[in-house]
Amino acid sequence: MRETDIRIGILTVSDRASRGEYEDVSGPAIIKWLRERLTSEWKAEYSVIPDERSRIEDELIRMADDEKCCLVITSGGTGPALRDVTPDATEAVCGKMLPGFGERMRMVSFQYVPTAVLSRQAAGIRRETLIINLPGNPKAISECLEAIFPAVPDCIDLIGGARLECDESLIRIFRHN
Amino acid sequence: MRETDIRIGILTVSDRASRGEYEDVSGPAIIKWLRERLTSEWKAEYSVIPDERSRIEDELIRMADDEKCCLVITSGGTGPALRDVTPDATEAVCGKMLPGFGERMRMVSFQYVPTAVLSRQAAGIRRETLIINLPGNPKAISECLEAIFPAVPDCIDLIGGARLECDESLIRIFRHN
Amino acid sequence: MRETDIRIGILTVSDRASRGEYEDVSGPAIIKWLRERLTSEWKAEYSVIPDERSRIEDELIRMADDEKCCLVITSGGTGPALRDVTPDATEAVCGKMLPGFGERMRMVSFQYVPTAVLSRQAAGIRRETLIINLPGNPKAISECLEAIFPAVPDCIDLIGGARLECDESLIRIFRHN
Repeated sequence: MRETDIRIGILTVSDRASRGEYEDVSGPAIIKWLRERLTSEWKAEYSVIPDERSRIEDELIRMADDEKCCLVITSGGTGPALRDVTPDATEAVCGKMLPGFGERMRMVSFQYVPTAVLSRQAAGIRRETLIINLPGNPKAISECLEAIFPAVPDCIDLIGGARLECDESLIRIFRHN
Repeated sequence: MRETDIRIGILTVSDRASRGEYEDVSGPAIIKWLRERLTSEWKAEYSVIPDERSRIEDELIRMADDEKCCLVITSGGTGPALRDVTPDATEAVCGKMLPGFGERMRMVSFQYVPTAVLSRQAAGIRRETLIINLPGNPKAISECLEAIFPAVPDCIDLIGGARLECDESLIRIFRHN
Repeated sequence: MRETDIRIGILTVSDRASRGEYEDVSGPAIIKWLRERLTSEWKAEYSVIPDERSRIEDELIRMADDEKCCLVITSGGTGPALRDVTPDATEAVCGKMLPGFGERMRMVSFQYVPTAVLSRQAAGIRRETLIINLPGNPKAISECLEAIFPAVPDCIDLIGGARLECDESLIRIFRHN
């Protein structure tokens, strides 16, 4: 795979943003965070969809299977409310779940707000794609990414995805090979 | 909903307490803890039942659907023994699980006893009711409640339940609205 | 049960070690760790098998049901790669999962490497047998065992297994009876 073929899906899940009631800031915040740290060339597959489980599942499958994204990062829909279904959609399309991601992100967020226990953020693997749920709150997004991204390139290596290189002055990556 | 309509279920799960072999102390300890901290008027729905999965499920459903409790707190039946089935019953009646509660309570209990890893305590949502499992040990009950209660009123707001107000000099609540 | 009837299963899951491409070091490291700390007499049931889910399930069932091991410790196959299926096999043969073990081991390993979030290590109970997954990396094995073993004898007591006694100068055990 040529480096320029690296694709990363950024999926904002929000009823109001998808209806245009406000502008999505989470998705662009994730893209900016990645642009600053990834030295490999990559293309973003970005979309904004409502909090509907079947829509989320379809979009995750499209990004993973059709667009061949090695990584899909969602934001939003991770709370306890009735329409928060992103983790459920994620689990439905993944063959394996990685409980350590959710545990670690809740632990980090808990340092800022006790309501971090309410987050159902999950991560899992669909074939050669790692899917990670982030919360919708833009401030929490960078806290969570800082906490878990050092393990992401190694995970993508292990599932046979593209090799992601990072600016080591900004983030220290750990990998086995 | 009038404030006086706020109902909270307190469900002690214990073979021996339900047979009257000893007096339940966990349930009254939870009620006392809540009475001291909640400034909203509320009524306790309290019962003591044996460690039988179908009985626990029926009682959780009754408290949630019939009694309209916005919160049900169980105690007991969270360990690894054959008859410890409270978390299994909880999961069976909930539409969504909130893994952060169990993680946080085990983390707090681990500071006191390494056997905290054995606890299967869970929490989940059944429609407009938050269900939280506490251990049976009365000392662990207040440790666990102190750890997670700051997020409980916000969770109940988010699922459309009653608005719980607390004495902020005793416990600091975080909520979004 | 006579003390000499205590059996502990040590199951190394590794394609390459099972084909003889290298010598298994994880299994012997676990046995050595236990030999040094357990003062009860016990016999090890040790085997090395490939990363195949049905083989792992069959071997876990044999160790639990036929060999009457009170404890089975696996190593390997806990990562995100396609052939890493040990936690899945463990969950398939267990009646109850104990999420606290995985959480605690990931938390301890995270102090050494951020890739600890990738581990899917689990633990669960099959009737009177506690099954615990350890990672394949020999260095991580003792970190994980130090972290969770203080709760293991109590867990085995609670599920009706053999009574394990340890050298308290080397490891401090907590138990209820």
